[in-house]
Amino acid sequence: MIATPLSAYADIGRRIAPALQAGAILTDVGSVKQAVIRDLQPHLPPKVHFVPGHPVAGTEHSGPEAGFAELFRGRWCILIALPETAPEAVARVGRMWERLGMHVVTMSADHHDKVLAVTSHLPHLIAYTIVGTATDLEDSLKSEVIEFSASGFRDFTRIAASDPVMWRDIFLNNREAVLEILQRFNEDLTALQRAIRWGEGDKLQDLFTRTRAIRRSIIEAKQD
Amino acid sequence: MIATPLSAYADIGRRIAPALQAGAILTDVGSVKQAVIRDLQPHLPPKVHFVPGHPVAGTEHSGPEAGFAELFRGRWCILIALPETAPEAVARVGRMWERLGMHVVTMSADHHDKVLAVTSHLPHLIAYTIVGTATDLEDSLKSEVIEFSASGFRDFTRIAASDPVMWRDIFLNNREAVLEILQRFNEDLTALQRAIRWGEGDKLQDLFTRTRAIRRSIIEAKQD
Repeated sequence: MIATPLSAYADIGRRIAPALQAGAILTDVGSVKQAVIRDLQPHLPPKVHFVPGHPVAGTEHSGPEAGFAELFRGRWCILIALPETAPEAVARVGRMWERLGMHVVTMSADHHDKVLAVTSHLPHLIAYTIVGTATDLEDSLKSEVIEFSASGFRDFTRIAASDPVMWRDIFLNNREAVLEILQRFNEDLTALQRAIRWGEGDKLQDLFTRTRAIRRSIIEAKQD
Repeated sequence: MIATPLSAYADIGRRIAPALQAGAILTDVGSVKQAVIRDLQPHLPPKVHFVPGHPVAGTEHSGPEAGFAELFRGRWCILIALPETAPEAVARVGRMWERLGMHVVTMSADHHDKVLAVTSHLPHLIAYTIVGTATDLEDSLKSEVIEFSASGFRDFTRIAASDPVMWRDIFLNNREAVLEILQRFNEDLTALQRAIRWGEGDKLQDLFTRTRAIRRSIIEAKQD
């Protein structure tokens, strides 16, 4: 099981390939799946079962010390069932994650990368940006931003404290999907900016009412 | 103490003014302070002490049922000491908040509005936008965004579940400060977008490393 930043995968694939026996199962936990297939698959001997995986769980902390018993419980694990991989190998990796309490689902690598661009990569990009904007403020304002962070900003700083190398690699390796959803976000933000500038309260209230419904859906899906 | 959405203040000022006795202290808990002074002060009889206030604490829930004993503990309360208000009136309002566990600080209404635009108003605007972007996705993607929300998106939905009328009024009443910080955010986001498009990993990693330091400052300031 490979669990490193994505930029290390190609080299890891080259190095471990000679040691992989026929019938071995190779899986990973990387946050992007098309790039992982691109970087690993060419190196693998034909009789190795490759099951790209992504346990969607974690905190802003990294490394073995950041683990805890409930980390995976009730969360989703996404596995990619490649056409050339034996279904039994996919099922076996799935059973391992289920024993840790995860719900296992399979989807295509392309679809995975699109979904995660929305749910994970764009939120991290936005959080990094807003915290970066705050760090560039004049000093008098910056110290107060830290003191009064409890009013919303704090939640962004938690996300923006995630591992820099891991996240650099995610953005570089899921470029198209991230840029596409970022474009949509930019259009929506520009519309909201315009509504504020022109004092269009109804438009603001309409959006803010719609977004509440999404929160309720998440609570109902027990992902809160 | 006025505790309503900001758009109700002017009317409330008109209605309560005739009932305010000389020596009465009027305060509020609104999230914008220049607009509150603009809307209330003209209505107040001369011998009323006006102390605009903002206890910077809260959750995404509203109303009396959403209160809990520790809500204000260890958080900041910002009071505006207007030149025409007796210092003893400001001190009295401050003591009340201190009894609820808050640290009290005074600053100008203009400075308050700038600080909160960064720490609270922009983060809410961004969260509303990204959750709105997700609600507009095609249905197949949207249902999965909810299921895989634990990967970052979830934190934004909590913020974007805040009261729509309260937040409409905040944006309409702190327009200049919000648009100014939004402009800075947009510039920074565009730079990051460009770094992703051109594969400039060093720029990404540099920013992601800088933003971690802000998180540490917040933990040290005990606002986490």
